[in-house]
Order: sequence, then C-alpha cells, then structure tokens
Amino acid sequence: MKIVFRLRIDHYVVSFLMMIFLSFNSRLVFSQQNSSQKEIEKKFDSFLNPADLKARLEKLSAHPHHVGSPYDKENAEYILSLYKSWGWDAHIETFYALFPTPKTRVLEMVSPEKYTAILKEPPLKEDKTSFQTDEQLPTYNAYSIDGDVTGELVYVNYGVPSDYDELARRGIDVKGKIVIARYGASWRGIKPKVAAEHGAVGCILYSDPKDDGFYAGDVYPKGSWRNEYGVQRGSVADMPVYSGDPSTPFVGATKDAKHLAVKDITILTKIPVLPISYHDALPLLQSLNGPVVPDSWKGALPITYHIGPGPAKVHLKVQSDWDIKPVNDVIAMMKGSVYPDQWVIRGNHHDGWVNGAEDPLSGQVAMLEEAKAIGGLYKNGWRPKRTIVYCSWDGEEPGLIGSTEWVETHADELKQKAVVYINSDSNGRGFLFAGASHTLQSFINDAAKDITDPEKGISVWERLRAKRILDAPTPEAKKEIETNKELKVSALGSGSDYTPFLQHLGIASMNIGYGGENEGGVYHSVYDSFDHYMRFGDPTLEYGIALAKTGGRLVLRMADANILPFNFDDFANTILAYLAQVKKLTNDMRETTNALNYELKNNLFEEAADPTKISLPPKSEAPVPYLNFAPLENAIDNLQHSADAYQKIKNELLESGKKLSPGQLADLNKIIFRTERTLTTKEGLPGRPWYVHEIYAPGLYTGYGVKTLPGIRESIEQRNWDEATRQIIVVANTLNNFSGEINKATEIIKAVLK
Amino acid sequence: MKIVFRLRIDHYVVSFLMMIFLSFNSRLVFSQQNSSQKEIEKKFDSFLNPADLKARLEKLSAHPHHVGSPYDKENAEYILSLYKSWGWDAHIETFYALFPTPKTRVLEMVSPEKYTAILKEPPLKEDKTSFQTDEQLPTYNAYSIDGDVTGELVYVNYGVPSDYDELARRGIDVKGKIVIARYGASWRGIKPKVAAEHGAVGCILYSDPKDDGFYAGDVYPKGSWRNEYGVQRGSVADMPVYSGDPSTPFVGATKDAKHLAVKDITILTKIPVLPISYHDALPLLQSLNGPVVPDSWKGALPITYHIGPGPAKVHLKVQSDWDIKPVNDVIAMMKGSVYPDQWVIRGNHHDGWVNGAEDPLSGQVAMLEEAKAIGGLYKNGWRPKRTIVYCSWDGEEPGLIGSTEWVETHADELKQKAVVYINSDSNGRGFLFAGASHTLQSFINDAAKDITDPEKGISVWERLRAKRILDAPTPEAKKEIETNKELKVSALGSGSDYTPFLQHLGIASMNIGYGGENEGGVYHSVYDSFDHYMRFGDPTLEYGIALAKTGGRLVLRMADANILPFNFDDFANTILAYLAQVKKLTNDMRETTNALNYELKNNLFEEAADPTKISLPPKSEAPVPYLNFAPLENAIDNLQHSADAYQKIKNELLESGKKLSPGQLADLNKIIFRTERTLTTKEGLPGRPWYVHEIYAPGLYTGYGVKTLPGIRESIEQRNWDEATRQIIVVANTLNNFSGEINKATEIIKAVLK
Repeated sequence: MKIVFRLRIDHYVVSFLMMIFLSFNSRLVFSQQNSSQKEIEKKFDSFLNPADLKARLEKLSAHPHHVGSPYDKENAEYILSLYKSWGWDAHIETFYALFPTPKTRVLEMVSPEKYTAILKEPPLKEDKTSFQTDEQLPTYNAYSIDGDVTGELVYVNYGVPSDYDELARRGIDVKGKIVIARYGASWRGIKPKVAAEHGAVGCILYSDPKDDGFYAGDVYPKGSWRNEYGVQRGSVADMPVYSGDPSTPFVGATKDAKHLAVKDITILTKIPVLPISYHDALPLLQSLNGPVVPDSWKGALPITYHIGPGPAKVHLKVQSDWDIKPVNDVIAMMKGSVYPDQWVIRGNHHDGWVNGAEDPLSGQVAMLEEAKAIGGLYKNGWRPKRTIVYCSWDGEEPGLIGSTEWVETHADELKQKAVVYINSDSNGRGFLFAGASHTLQSFINDAAKDITDPEKGISVWERLRAKRILDAPTPEAKKEIETNKELKVSALGSGSDYTPFLQHLGIASMNIGYGGENEGGVYHSVYDSFDHYMRFGDPTLEYGIALAKTGGRLVLRMADANILPFNFDDFANTILAYLAQVKKLTNDMRETTNALNYELKNNLFEEAADPTKISLPPKSEAPVPYLNFAPLENAIDNLQHSADAYQKIKNELLESGKKLSPGQLADLNKIIFRTERTLTTKEGLPGRPWYVHEIYAPGLYTGYGVKTLPGIRESIEQRNWDEATRQIIVVANTLNNFSGEINKATEIIKAVLK
Repeated sequence: MKIVFRLRIDHYVVSFLMMIFLSFNSRLVFSQQNSSQKEIEKKFDSFLNPADLKARLEKLSAHPHHVGSPYDKENAEYILSLYKSWGWDAHIETFYALFPTPKTRVLEMVSPEKYTAILKEPPLKEDKTSFQTDEQLPTYNAYSIDGDVTGELVYVNYGVPSDYDELARRGIDVKGKIVIARYGASWRGIKPKVAAEHGAVGCILYSDPKDDGFYAGDVYPKGSWRNEYGVQRGSVADMPVYSGDPSTPFVGATKDAKHLAVKDITILTKIPVLPISYHDALPLLQSLNGPVVPDSWKGALPITYHIGPGPAKVHLKVQSDWDIKPVNDVIAMMKGSVYPDQWVIRGNHHDGWVNGAEDPLSGQVAMLEEAKAIGGLYKNGWRPKRTIVYCSWDGEEPGLIGSTEWVETHADELKQKAVVYINSDSNGRGFLFAGASHTLQSFINDAAKDITDPEKGISVWERLRAKRILDAPTPEAKKEIETNKELKVSALGSGSDYTPFLQHLGIASMNIGYGGENEGGVYHSVYDSFDHYMRFGDPTLEYGIALAKTGGRLVLRMADANILPFNFDDFANTILAYLAQVKKLTNDMRETTNALNYELKNNLFEEAADPTKISLPPKSEAPVPYLNFAPLENAIDNLQHSADAYQKIKNELLESGKKLSPGQLADLNKIIFRTERTLTTKEGLPGRPWYVHEIYAPGLYTGYGVKTLPGIRESIEQRNWDEATRQIIVVANTLNNFSGEINKATEIIKAVLK
C-alpha cells in the first residue's frame, strides 16, 4: 500500500490509483467470502424462471390497477400470498391518501373554429386489455385543481422557465391565457407550476410526436410508439417540494392521520391542467398565429408551429372527486440471523396508471422472482446475516405515496436500521442502468461484473462499458471510460420510490434496471399492456431474469457482508467533480452575464433586430460575484484524506488477517451505513424542508432531473449569491460531519490493528 | 512605427497590433484622397433611386428568362440598352453552350401502390407570373443523363458519403436501386455522383419541409416558404471538376468552338436524376420499410422515416433535348483614364431558372443601378483611373456558363489586366455578407463602415458586427469579435460567377450581398417572382440600394486607388488559421481512428449491438501518420515576414509624404494585383486541373461549400497521406512565390524611400 503514498502527487492521481487498487481489493473481499457467496448466488440463480415472470406479468396486468381500484387491491393480496408462499413474514400495510380521480374533463376550442377534444384512447384489436374502458382511469393529470377557464391559447414549448424568457423577447405574456406545453425536458409538474407563476389560467399538456410518437418509429399497433390518440397520464403535484400524500406532509397517512383540507395543500397546481394526445393537439396548434416558434421549439406535427396568443381560444374544465383512497403496500421481511437490526430494503411499486405492464410490473415481477429465490434459499436452510425487507409499493404513480407514507410512518426505526434501499421500477431489453449514492458505486460495479447479459454472453458490466465507450462523444471521453476500472453510476433525482429513503431520511440508495433496446411509446397510457410488452419490451423475459439476478446479488451481498462494502473514495471523487461543476457554472454564468451586459450596453440587440418583428432584448443581470468556495474545498480535501485513510486501513486489516470482534464489527458497520444520514441537515434544502439530503435532490424546476449539491447549485442558478455562500458552508459542514464518521470507522479498525 | 517592432513578441501580437495600426492607416489612405473620394461617393449615391430598381425588377422578371428562352434574349437587349443609355461602351457577347431541356419526365411508384408524381408547380392567384406555364422550364435537373430505370427505392438522407457509411452499418446496399435524397448539406450535384459511385441506377432529389418548407414558416402564398408543390430546379453536373459549358472545358464556347459529344463529357451525371416536391415525395417515403432512419436523417413529413430498400419500387424516366443554346452576356466598359490596362470587373447574372426575381434579378437591378450612377458621374465629367467593366452574365444557373466562357475566351487578357472581380447574385433584407480573397478583407471592411443600414441608420458594418457578436456561441468567441478591428470575410467556394475568375485564373475576387431578414422558400421555383419578392424579399428595395452603394464604393475605390488596397497581413493570418485547421483535422482523425480501432479490436460494436437489428461495425482505418507540415509552416512564417515588411514600408511611405513616380506606381500596382495569380499552379488541384487556385476551391464532395487549402485538406480527408505530403510542398512553394511578389513590391517602395 505504500506505493500509493509514495506516488501521491495530487488527488486525481491518488484517486485513480486507489480506484485500481480498491477495485482489486474489493474483489479480494468477495473472494474471501467467495466460495460460500458464489455458491449461494448460484443456488439463487437456479430458482429463477422466465416462465414464472411471464405468468405473473400477465396476471398482474390483466386489469387496470390504479390506486383505489378493485384490481389494485386484488394484486396486493395476490402479491402478499406469493411472499407468504415463499416463506416470508409478509403483510399489507394500508395508508389512506388523497387521490383525486376525474369527474369532468372538457377541452374545446371555441374559436376561430369549433373543436371538441376526444380525450380518449381507443381500444385496438391487437391489444386485448385496451377494451377494458370501464375499468380504465380516464386521461387526466392527478392533483390538478378543479377549474373552468376560457382563454386565448399560447404555445410555450416545454413550458420551462427559459421558454418564458423566449416569450418575453417576443413581447408575449401568458397572463389570463391558457398555455399548451409539450411533454418533455422537465418533469410534467413543473409545467403548470411555471405557467401559473407567469399568470396563465390553464395548462394543456400534450405528447408531441417529435418527443413521443411517430418521429421515433412506427406507432402502435404497427410498431411500438405512441399513436395519435395515446395520452400520458400523470401527477402534476409540486413533487420537488415533498412527495407522498399531499394531504399529510411529513407524517404517515395512517388510518387516523390528520389530512389537510384540499384548499390548504400547497403542492396542488394553481391552475387546471389536462393532458391530451397529439390528435387533439393538432387542431389547436394549427389555429395559432403570432410569431413562428424558435427552431428548438418545433415538434413533428406537419404544421408551421406558431406561438400565438390566439386566435385559438379554448375552454378547459377539469373537476375531480377529491377522495381519500386506500394505498396497499405489501411488506415482506426475513429476519437477519446476526444483525436483525440492520435492514437491507428492496422495493418496486405495483400500482399502474392503467394496466401498467411495463411500468411497473416488468420490474415488480423480477423483484418477486428475487423474493421467490431468496425464499428458496431460506427453505434450503440459508439465513441472511442482516434482515431483508421486500416492499411492493402501492401509490407510486400519483406521487410515491406508498413508499413515502411507509417511510414517514417508520422514520425513526428506519433511521436506526436501514442499511440501504434498492429500488427498481420498469425494466426492458438492453443495458444495465444504475443510479445510486456514490458510496455504493464500486459495490454495484462488482455485482454487474458477475451477471451475464442474456443476449451476448458477456457480463452486463462489459456490455454497458462497450456502449458507454461507443456513445462517448470524443476520443478523450472514450479514453476516460476505457482506463477507468469502474463505470460511473448516475446521481439520483426523483421519479421513483427511492426518494423518501434517500432524500427524506438519508438512507444510501440505488435504482436499477435494464433498458435501451426495448421500444417505448406507451408510458402512462392504456397501451402499456401485456400484449405490448411481449412484443416490444422483453419478449423472453430474460432481462427480467437479469434484473432479478442483479437485485438478488445486491441484496444478498449486502445482507451477508462482513464489513459493509461502502466505498468513500468514489464518493469523495464524485463530490470533487461536483465542486468543479458548480465552480464552472458560476464562472460560465459570470462570463455569459458579462457578455450579455456588454451586448445590452452597446445596444447590439436593437442594432441586429429585424424591425418587422417584435424582438426585445433580454433583461440585464447583475454581475456574478466570485464566491468563496474555500470552505467546501477544505471540506472535500478533508473528505479525501478521511476516505483514503479508511480504505487504506480497511485493506491493511484484510491483509493482516486480523478479525474484529462481533461488537467491533457491529459498531463499525453501524457507522458505515449511517454515514449517509450525516449528509442530511435538520433544516433541509432552501424552501423545501422535507428534502434534507445535501448532495442529491430533484430539481425545483426540473423535477425528476437530479440536482447535485442542490442547495449550492440551485442558489447559483437562481443568482441568489448570499444563499449560495450560506449553502457552501452548510455543505462543507455536512461533509465534515461525514468525514468525522469515516474517521470513527478508521479508528475502530486502527484499534484492532494496534 | 517602431513601436510595432519593439513590441514584437510573436506573430499574433504583431498581427493584432498591425491590424489596429493598419486599420487606422488605411483610413489615412482614404482620408488623403478623401475629400474628392467622399465627394464622388456622395454624388454617386445621389443617382440611386429605389423606384428604378423596382421598375427594372418588375420588367426583367415579367416572363421566364432561362438560357435560350426568348425573354432571356429580350432581357439581354434591354440591359444592353440601359448600359448604353448611361454612356457605357457596351455589347452583347454571345456564347453557344450545351444546355439540355426536358423532353420526358416520368416518376411513378409501381408497387406496392400506384402513384404518379405530378411534377408540376400549380399557378397561384396571389402570384401573377405563376400562370405562365407555357413559358416555364419544367421541373428538372439539367445535365442529368437520359435514362429509363425501375428499381426498389432507398432513402439516403442528404446522399453525401457519410450517409452511405450509415447504410453500410445497416447492411444496406444501393446497387441496382433508385435512391431518394433530400436537398441540403451539399451541393445538389454531389448527390447523384455519390449515388452512382455506390451503384445506384437512378436518383430522386426532393425538398424536405424540414430543410425547405413548412418547418421554417408558413408556406406560399400564405407565407413565404416552399409549399408542398414547390420544386428546386438546378444543375447536377460535376461542377467541382470544372464549371461552364460542359462540352467546352478550358476553352470559350464561341461561335466556332469545338464541342465534345455528349457521350464524351465526363461531368454529366452517370445516372438519371429528377427533382420533386414534398407532395410527390410523401407517398414514396411512406411506402418504405426496413430500418427506421437515424435521428439526423429525419425530415418534417408526418411519417416515420424508413430507409428501405422497398417495398416501394419506382420507375424513373428522364430524357432531354441536348441542344446548343445561345448564352448572352452583356459587357459594359468604361475606359480608365490613367491605367486603361488595369480592369476592375463587376458582375451579376441575369438568367433565371424561371422568373427569377430574387435569383438573380434582385442583385442584377442593384448592379445596374451602380452602372447608372457611374454613368451619371461620367456625364458629370468624372473619369475612372482604371478601366471599369460591368458584366450582366447569362447562363449562370446551368453552371456559371456566361462568366466561365467569357473568362476562358479572354483568359490571357484577364490574367494581364484584371485587378479584382466583384460579384453579387441574389439580394434581400438584412445583413451584409461578404466572401473574398483575404487580401481584400480590410478593403471590404472599410467600405462597409461607410454604408448606412437602411433600417437602423448605423453602418452595415456595425450592424453585422452586432449580429456576429450575438450569434457567437461562447463568451470567448464574442470577445474575439469585440476586440477585432475587422470583421472576417468568408472564403469563396463556388455557386456563383466568381469561380472562373478566382479559381481558374487567380483573380482576387469578392462576393457581396445582403440577406438574413428576407424570407426564402422559392429557390429555383416558379414562385421566385416579383409578387413574392415584393412581399418577402426587399419590399422597399432599400437593400438593393445598399447593395448598389456597396458595389459602387468597392468599384470606385478600387478604380481610383493610388496604391491598390490589398492587405497581405490579413491574408497571412488567415492562412495561419487554415494551417491550424488542417493540423487539427489530422490530429482529430488520428485520435478518432485510434479510438475506432480500439473499439473494433475489442469487439465493442458486437458487444453493444441489438441482436434484433442489423448493426455492423464500421470498417477499420489504417492509423493516421504524422505529416510533415514544416514546409508549410516555414512558408507561412516567410509570408508573415513579407506581409509585415510590406505593410510597414507602405505606411512609412505614406508618412514620409514621398511620391512614387507614375512608372513606379504602375509597376507596384501591377505586382500587387497579380499576387493572387501566384496562388495558382499550372497543374491545378489533384484530379481537377481546371481548378488552379491552391487556397480556395469548392469541395469535391461538398460542391458549393469551400475547401481552403483544398489540395492538402481533401487529401487528408481522403486519407491519401502521400498526396497530402506532396500538396503541403505544393502549397508551401505557392506561398513562397506569393511572398516573393510581396517582397518585390516592398523593394519598389524601399527604393523610393532611400
């Protein structure tokens, strides 16, 4: 190990060498356990059967199974019976959450021509469940407020803040207007939020064929992709403020929970919202005049896209039944034989917007297969060292309700006991994707190297690496991947059930699945069906098996690990990269602002503008100050030293052959898995105290899209320099606490080695 | 001036300081002549009148006036009468060139469904000349060979070489097939050339609405843009090999010229070609199956674009009348009072594909206004020092015939006498655009600073600078423009009448015009009409006046200059930048090749490929060697020294107040304007001896698009390393000759200062 220190030139070199070294060593860790671990995993694999996945997928997707529907309940009970049949200690835990369903939906163009939107997805003979129209939830956006509005229409592209800057440049205001925005570029809930902030009175969302339709490929049923009638349902609550039941923030929506009155809920939309198909959008967009849109706003409909306002004038009416509905989580536990109070948690939701074959059942049936196989191991006498918890969540679609309410209800226990949370959602043919807390990056890499790709016979790791190299845009970027011993995992934003675990409690989390070769186009529509999935998703279910192998390995290895396989070097290197990003962001903003202000001061916009068109200059911005990043830089330096020291002493321990006492090991592991907890603060992020993780959060104006170092990054983006400076200190302190925990872990091992 | 030498740190600093200095000094040059020059230009401007441009535009575009048509002849005679009425010594010089016109045009889909292409642009009530269907040249591609072929259809995107690489990756071969390519990305003649090289038997060209249609804006007649029936006519001869009459390469197509038999002409297409509208393309494209195209291949038609081959099978039949037609150039001269043998040449063509209001008459009427105003000066007693030649070319559309045949006929005299050639073509509302020999960059900049933009009241230079800064993609790129005293002019490729002057004879050339705010969509269609131009082109004709002021100033200043205002520093700096480009190109190719070969060697393509689709790896490439750029680097160093020394001594001369004798001045100027001649070689470019300019050429596989240092750059692109090495030496020698001429100029001045 001394070679590492002799070669210490800078953090990058060390990080790089450590990565090579540790990757080698982490294999040592497993190779020590390997004989038994490999045997267990082999046995685990022997229980997996694609036919079981297929049968389960067909059964679970046989009817629409949204929150509160009879088949949702039936599925929960069926899943419960499966867990029980495999030997798990399982139960249904029911919450009671606000889940509005549509009562009235009207969208009509009242001038210059009459058009009444059909708002329906017609049954197709090629898709047997598409005929279940009586059971289907109509096309709508949950958590839109009720409203009845009429106004001129304005096309706002994706409806994100920068789109309104473009409107302003053209002298167009949406006050009192109804906006039509296409899906894409941000989470859907951002669009009505930003529209309302700009004074719009209503919001129509639609799937443009450019983003989701014939532009990608042949449409269903000829091909996979969204046909002209397909509509994307979905929640439009302000999820980046908090997830779960909107009427019970911070607390579990248990039987007796107190619900906020609808009028007191802050995260409902401020204006009525309705999603439509591109069949319904075409006549509306065709009836807009005003400026032609910028190139980046153009969709694939065969028209010249105009912004408006008008002459199209539309009437939008949305009313819901604002009922409390039961949310049926199925929770299955297998008690740990050595560390019953260390929980390895695995989850995937079971509710769908309609039949939900791909989303979420493709993931659910793979996860159930894991539970079956672990049940098989159990029946063969194997016992996990740590407690394993499998969770089939309900109510994910409306807003991660099942997971959030469970997390809020059991928050104290989970803070004590949760080692990791491993999530999946949809699954398909193709490549492994993995988002995670970066302490788990090497853990995921190691598992991925041991799973064989069903199409190619090489490891899924190798295959993903091949794709990443091919996709990298420059020789330099290719080289970086080629020389790295690990594939980077992405940071977690939101959009699935890891959010409450990671971002509300600080539990190290992962999100896994396969995809990239399956064809889409049915997201949140009636056509997300068994028939569709068996043609375009994963016809042999072999990638369902691959997901089960992946989830299973992650669960089993984490449950049985001697020293928990968290790698702090990966985390430290990732944070260092994030620091570079926020510094670059600030510098780029400074340069861009200076350039803009030069252009404004010198009247360049007026000079270049076409006098026959309205073209206003953008508004000027105050110069961007230099921020004091030093506290963060010092904290990261500190973190790298702590991480290096820990990995070094851990390796020394392994090489020494010395053993920690059971008590020492218990203490060490408790410190290790709780390090993620120290990445949270009591105050949470600016303006959204439910989100307490200082490293990963969904963006306030991107939604699912992650913002890393969110307090700092979003303050910079919003040009709130005082807040950015405060947040730098908050994150620095957070990282120092994290380093302190690593140091404690190091001390425990040091004591043993002495 | 010594400050320049004291501060000499490197070429860049010097160049920069020299640029500031010279810009200041070149103003001095004019300010010495200024009182009279400014007076002359003021007087010149006083003759300009937009009403005259409008009347002339309406008259010249009143009927279709393609080569060989009655109205083409009538226009030539009208233009001749104008020149004469303004006091010019004018005549019509007629050439006799091969110009095929359509006899048979058939395009039909024979299976899986029947469709017969309509191949017609219907008259519109909003466009009065669109009803002249009997006089219009049908939609076709001139210089397509005759042919009658039937075959499966393949969509090949833009039909450039890289598109065929994509086909190969998908295992698709066009041998024996008919390809359909969209216009754009290259000059149209490249598409059938590349298709034939790959074995296709026929080629259909169409205007996709993504590139040229409703994607840009509302279509004609509601808006300006190409409607579903609009077709782009145009030549498809292999113009990058030689321009002009295909049957008389290298020699003027005078009355008695010997014409090649059609079968012996090398630059006709090898397969039949026909252009169609997107109305006619839609049913064909809709009948293709096979793989979905890559994203970058997707157009704006409301379909999923597939590659084929088939099932669409089409029958294409093209037959032309292969007649020799008269080409009527109108040449107007005004003899120089001091240097009758130094010619300043100005040109713009008058022939159109149909009514051609924008292309070329918008430029033609502005140029005629210059001639009128110069005639006015002449009538007031002013005489140019140098001879001025105004040329209204015929036969530009089929292949720069009028200009090329005139240049070939008068080559010896032009080599002796031509100081510069100043071209324009179409014109519209907006911003100055200028391409030029870079020795003329500062000359154009100075003129542009003295012309007022009609919409903004600032100079057209200032307005262009504002736009360039706003359009620059990064703060660094903006900064560069902000700090530069000059705006860069682009290099000249081809596509208008400067080509024979610049690239066949080595006459320093410019191409100027205004545009960017006018709306297009009628290029080479019947809708390029007076009605269209008056709505969407330049309704007040004020930009026609701006073009006349620009052309007029360039002509007058060049005709009356004491020492010709060529700037060799600008040229040297530009060549230095080109050197950096070809070095970077080589280095990038090396890295990309290495990366590709790594990927191939490691089977990454197979590993990542979707087994349900055909996806073959690209072919491997030999490693890219390091080339010896030293000869070129030394030559450029040499050039920079020569250029610096000349500019320095020229400024010393101006400051000294000393005068050159008339003989010395004549000698000096002759050397200066003939420097461009030394940039040519007797051998010409590899494989195309007609093109002899070693710095600027149209690309062999891009067409109009310029390739600078073409011998070197295209050899590198074609991975012909031996040829590249040879060409580096050729260009180095060329530049050394050029520097030698500059040194001679320097010596003349030195002798005077002694």
